[in-house]
Order: sequence, then C-alpha cells, then structure tokens
Amino acid sequence: MKRVIICLILTIVFAGFVNAQDTVPPAPNGISFPSDYKDWRLISSSHRVDNNTLRVILGNDTAIAAARFKQINPWPDGAVMAKIVWKETTLDSWEKAIVPGEFVHVEFMIKDAKKYSDTGGWGFARWKGMELKPYGQNESFVYECFGCHTPVKGSDYVFTHPSTLP
Amino acid sequence: MKRVIICLILTIVFAGFVNAQDTVPPAPNGISFPSDYKDWRLISSSHRVDNNTLRVILGNDTAIAAARFKQINPWPDGAVMAKIVWKETTLDSWEKAIVPGEFVHVEFMIKDAKKYSDTGGWGFARWKGMELKPYGQNESFVYECFGCHTPVKGSDYVFTHPSTLP
Repeated sequence: MKRVIICLILTIVFAGFVNAQDTVPPAPNGISFPSDYKDWRLISSSHRVDNNTLRVILGNDTAIAAARFKQINPWPDGAVMAKIVWKETTLDSWEKAIVPGEFVHVEFMIKDAKKYSDTGGWGFARWKGMELKPYGQNESFVYECFGCHTPVKGSDYVFTHPSTLP
Repeated sequence: MKRVIICLILTIVFAGFVNAQDTVPPAPNGISFPSDYKDWRLISSSHRVDNNTLRVILGNDTAIAAARFKQINPWPDGAVMAKIVWKETTLDSWEKAIVPGEFVHVEFMIKDAKKYSDTGGWGFARWKGMELKPYGQNESFVYECFGCHTPVKGSDYVFTHPSTLP
C-alpha cells in the first residue's frame, strides 16, 4: 500500500512537472522552450572564472552526430545546443571541488542558416531562473547574443569545442 | 558522388569506432566497459582545483530517474554513474573559461547492494586514456576507490549531488 501511495505521489509530481514545462512562455523572438533539453547528450562543460559559473553544454541528436563526426564548421541545420548555467559552489565533502549550485539560466543556439541568416544562421534564446522566464524585452535581444558570439565567427559563432570522449 | 564517398568514409570510421569500444578489456574485478556511457544523460559537473581537472557526471536511465525523483539515499540497484575526467585547459576565445582538454579517464560506480556488499553496495571501475586501459593491477584496486568514498558514507558513498535542472 505504501508503494502504491508513493507511486501516486510521484505520478502527480511528474504530471505537474510536465505541465510546468509545457507552459514555459516562448522567447520574445518566438522560439519555443525545448522542454526535452535535459534528455539531450553531452557536448562539453566549462567553468567561467570571470563570473563564477559552471556550465554544461548539451546537444540534440543532430548536434551530437555533428560533434562526433567533427562536422561542426559549419554546424548543420537542425543542430541545437543547450548551455545550462549554475552559480558555482563548493562540495562540502571535497572543498577543492567546485560544483553547480543555484541554477541561473539555460540558453539555446538553434542552427537554421536560412531562417536565422541575420544572426549568423543561429537562433538564440534564453530562459532565466527556476521559473524559466524568457530573456529579453523584445526580439532585438538576439543582437546582444550575436554581438557576443561574433568574435568566434571562425568557428561558426560557437565558443564550445566538443569534448574528447573515447 | 562526393556525398556517397563521405558517407562511406563515415560508415567505415564509425564501424571501426564501434569495434574499438567492443574490444575494451574489462576491469580487473570483471566489470565490463559500459560502451554506451556517452549516450547517458547529465547528472552534474565539477572542476577539481586540487588536480586541475574538469569532470562531468552522467547516469544511466535508472540513475537519472533516481536523481530526478530524489531517490538517491540509497541509490537504487541498477543505477550506474560515469564520471568523465579531462585535464583543464583555457578557451582561446574566452580566456576566463576553463574547459575540458586532454581526456584523462572515465570511471564508473555501479549500484548492486548485494553483489557489491563488501564495498558499500557499489562496484567500481575505471578506464584510462584514449586507449581505455583498465585501472588496477588486480581486483583489490576497488578498496582504494572505496576508501576514498568512505567519508561520504552518509550520502551512499557518492560525492556528486545531482544538479538542479528546471
């Protein structure tokens, strides 16, 4: 009986979670929240020591295939990368390990050379905080993203190098 | 024609890669290399500043379900975590970003409370370098792993806390 109750509670929690994901508002440029991003696979990670954040970069199936076959300059249409950002904290049990703390935001780059030709072939979007609030007052926010990525035009506007995985 | 040749080359490379994974020797305690670990999903990441390595922790389906439902003390039988370790390096295009460089090793914790009762219910294994050489001279290497994890007995011998993902 206890197991049944636990299963019921988990089902309700999970249903609530799914609904919460489905109701995330789109970004001001119309990009929908990719609610399955947590199930994407690993591309790389980073530790930004200028703003004390840890980041993990995941990719959808198209991005992962491109990364594994080193077909990333340019990245193919359909590739989507998610960069998940947390404030850094320290592991209590190992003080020299800096680990993800509070969730900051998750941001996406979506490759469609034609659709997003104004911004290097990439659509940009970001959702902030645990409430996943869309970033940007209006659709012009993408020029802020694109401006920051322009110095890496030579690597198809992408900072991330896929990590080596044998 | 060019596309056909590229596809053929990719197929041959991929076939070679699959074979390489299949021929990874088991760990000295008999644990087989989980060759699909790269397709597992994210649990967390870390930056060890005592040995200058970046790490990403992935989990198999059982581990991910346990992490998402916070059923991790103890972790359920069948949960497997992979910790991928790289030497740290700096991103050329953003000097304050510390990112994965040379691959060091991938190590696994496999939960089976009965099978691995001598080592806290966890089977340990590690494969080193791009050649994925099994770690340890003989099966007693696991006591080195277990010794290091014993201080975190209170969190089922696991250092990693699953990262927050909305």
